[in-house]
Amino acid sequence: MDKIIDNLTKNFMRLPTVGPKTATRLAFHLISSPCNEIESLASAILSVKDVKFCIECGNITEADLCGFCSDDRRDRSIICVVEQPNDVMTIEQAKRFSGLYHILGGAISHLDGITPEMLRIAQLLKRVGTGLIKEVIIATNPNMEGDATALYLSKLLSSYDLKVTRIGFGLPVGGDLEYADPVTMARSLEARREMK
Amino acid sequence: MDKIIDNLTKNFMRLPTVGPKTATRLAFHLISSPCNEIESLASAILSVKDVKFCIECGNITEADLCGFCSDDRRDRSIICVVEQPNDVMTIEQAKRFSGLYHILGGAISHLDGITPEMLRIAQLLKRVGTGLIKEVIIATNPNMEGDATALYLSKLLSSYDLKVTRIGFGLPVGGDLEYADPVTMARSLEARREMK
Repeated sequence: MDKIIDNLTKNFMRLPTVGPKTATRLAFHLISSPCNEIESLASAILSVKDVKFCIECGNITEADLCGFCSDDRRDRSIICVVEQPNDVMTIEQAKRFSGLYHILGGAISHLDGITPEMLRIAQLLKRVGTGLIKEVIIATNPNMEGDATALYLSKLLSSYDLKVTRIGFGLPVGGDLEYADPVTMARSLEARREMK
Repeated sequence: MDKIIDNLTKNFMRLPTVGPKTATRLAFHLISSPCNEIESLASAILSVKDVKFCIECGNITEADLCGFCSDDRRDRSIICVVEQPNDVMTIEQAKRFSGLYHILGGAISHLDGITPEMLRIAQLLKRVGTGLIKEVIIATNPNMEGDATALYLSKLLSSYDLKVTRIGFGLPVGGDLEYADPVTMARSLEARREMK
């Protein structure tokens, strides 16, 4: 195969969700794309290097403070802790949270060699230390790493005078019992609530 | 959402197989990627502009002639006609064809306004006109446009002293009758062979 295509395919394959077949398809698509589209994509990718992070919460931002941290209408007494900036988007789309965020930058993982020191935990404790925070919602992912991180944080935060909560787990809305995996089903049972 | 992410997401969404969810995921992945990976991807994309096309068959190449047209071990009496350069790869992977290729650059489509004049048909007739070609295999896609193109080509080629064939259609190997669509099943029945 042509070296240019080969190199482009390999680069695409480094991206998540892109396997060899998709990578090849994308590469061949670009070959027949107009020059301005190719340049636009390349420069959009390069512009990622200019992304800044909020000095307060660690979210993606264009100014020093992100849109949430600089918005006076947000509830400043509650912080939702997430792993990555894209998690903020998922939570915002639910339209149920109006507090501030804190982005850890990942989750504790012995397998991937990610220690608590590599996450933005010190910055979280500094924010909590102001005494203005009444609740910390831990919204790390519902997997081993996310749960370990949640446990670690809840222990650290137990010495502060605030509520520490974890997002609820259970069956997804619109889901079907038949397709629920055993772990989710177990969590769903544990999270059962009285209907009265 | 951040303007940089927004712009990158929109650019990704122009690619085939990339919807809004994947585009967002790719964009956020790049944010946390090392600088050299970002630059490598962008430059790989830009390098697509340097892709050249074989003056003989229209395939992707680095020199004037592509790897197939310049390879003396390939059978020069048989040409396989395909729509796009990536179709060549699919056929090569089957390891059953050792002739040359001819890339049309698409298929006749009234809907998309693609007329025979916009395809590399004149170049094919020129190659066939040398009298060295004994067979032309038409391997355009098994859809309306591909079939129309195959029919058009077979009529054009009927005045030359050579065999014109169309690739076989039927059930995919490893497939299941239960999941075959009616059109494929019909083609499969038409293409039935005696087992003796």
